[in-house]
Amino acid sequence: MKLLRVGPVGAERPCVLAPDGRVLDVSSLTADIDGAFLAGGGVERVRSALAEGRLPEAGPFERVGAPVARPGKVVCIGLNYSDHAEETGAAIPAEPVVFMKASNTVVGPDDGVLVPRGSVKTDYEVELAVVLGGTARYLSSPAEAAGVIAGYAVANDVSEREFQNERGGQWDKGKSCETFNPLGPWLVTADEVGDPQALGLRLWVNGELRQDGDTKNQIFGVHHVIWYLSQFMVLEAGDVVNTGTPAGVALGRGPQAYLREGDVVELEIEGLGRQRQRVGQA
Amino acid sequence: MKLLRVGPVGAERPCVLAPDGRVLDVSSLTADIDGAFLAGGGVERVRSALAEGRLPEAGPFERVGAPVARPGKVVCIGLNYSDHAEETGAAIPAEPVVFMKASNTVVGPDDGVLVPRGSVKTDYEVELAVVLGGTARYLSSPAEAAGVIAGYAVANDVSEREFQNERGGQWDKGKSCETFNPLGPWLVTADEVGDPQALGLRLWVNGELRQDGDTKNQIFGVHHVIWYLSQFMVLEAGDVVNTGTPAGVALGRGPQAYLREGDVVELEIEGLGRQRQRVGQA
Repeated sequence: MKLLRVGPVGAERPCVLAPDGRVLDVSSLTADIDGAFLAGGGVERVRSALAEGRLPEAGPFERVGAPVARPGKVVCIGLNYSDHAEETGAAIPAEPVVFMKASNTVVGPDDGVLVPRGSVKTDYEVELAVVLGGTARYLSSPAEAAGVIAGYAVANDVSEREFQNERGGQWDKGKSCETFNPLGPWLVTADEVGDPQALGLRLWVNGELRQDGDTKNQIFGVHHVIWYLSQFMVLEAGDVVNTGTPAGVALGRGPQAYLREGDVVELEIEGLGRQRQRVGQA
Repeated sequence: MKLLRVGPVGAERPCVLAPDGRVLDVSSLTADIDGAFLAGGGVERVRSALAEGRLPEAGPFERVGAPVARPGKVVCIGLNYSDHAEETGAAIPAEPVVFMKASNTVVGPDDGVLVPRGSVKTDYEVELAVVLGGTARYLSSPAEAAGVIAGYAVANDVSEREFQNERGGQWDKGKSCETFNPLGPWLVTADEVGDPQALGLRLWVNGELRQDGDTKNQIFGVHHVIWYLSQFMVLEAGDVVNTGTPAGVALGRGPQAYLREGDVVELEIEGLGRQRQRVGQA
């Protein structure tokens, strides 16, 4: 099942994409698609209502928002594809590299991405995002992770490389700028995605294919990542985990590859849909 | 003015501490002390009601919660006192070092702190926390920061040093464990605090004074920090910024100084109140 939120920023309505392509409104079942909805059996309620044909059409809308309302946190895994680790000059990590993004970086899949003021190294990263459907605290094994994953979405882990690597300190400084986490268009439930380690990821800038990877090449798979994170923090329903990017980012291609005002970034992951962002200037 | 939240975890009631020491309930004015309250003139509404004697007593309560409901984000400044940078073996930073904590680390000032499973290096850090009262986006100067600061609180930026420094990656891994950010007892409004660069900070473990600093020794002062952060991310009302810790943490004292189950940590900052945490085991 594909859940989505449509409407103006801050006033999105919860919806589901029917198998026939219609967007149906689920406002009668929940005020929003958020942690409480995901943890409280909301997905099953929507599934039943969809099967029974009880949902009205959403009607026209001008924007798709992120498929979950403001997450409690956005946790990211760095250097999780060996080809990307190599292009950045980093060693293959022995265990997951963890950092965070401010959760107000999350925007809709087709919203504009803003180059921060003073930035000359704004970069893109197509990533498989995991959306939590329950609490993960000291999971006993990676296999347990399946029980707390609501589903998956496309994420662009936009990054400012100078802020991240050359401004004295931790990566977070280059990861949390305004608009730096387009998410969606859909939250695709885990049952529909099947094996999360068999998804192609691609990203284009102005029509040129820049990233072309597959989640089978993740160093640490999705279930391992969620299990691992649960040893260091409590993940909660509605939280988002970005699981790393394959090779092809601007950092590995040279200065001319960074994003500039007017560029168009497109991303897709097999079965999870497509994003398109026009780059603006903050 | 001193705002606080009292009651069980997840069901705290918003209150104000009257000058005569009584705790008064402000539930009639707001459902909670959060970003919407702080950004929407809530502090002034409480101030008026307090002056007019319109607020009822809160009655008995068994717990003080964090003085703001779940923040949108918790941003931290590292190595912001030269004596602390020295004890950790780090250089004095040329610009602020920025990292983040998961916002579900925030607990009440006297709630238990849990040593994570597998941890042998759980450490304490007394810090001046800034609570935002408005949006900070590309502030033009440090002086502008005063307009977006609601007030201040005591924070314990609990840290696991092995997770932070020896597990391959970014500091966040050792900063976001469950219970790792006791906050409060009060949100003291900025007008009552006066100069944020003239506050003594102290921390004891089992009655032994371990940290004894003063915010006058911050490398980057509060207004500079908020201005600086606003160049890299959008700070919002209700967000919390921990502004760094002075010398005396266990990391600088040797292995025997780390926290263990049964230890009692006490912290205070001049004018901002006192915390007391019993250390447990996750």
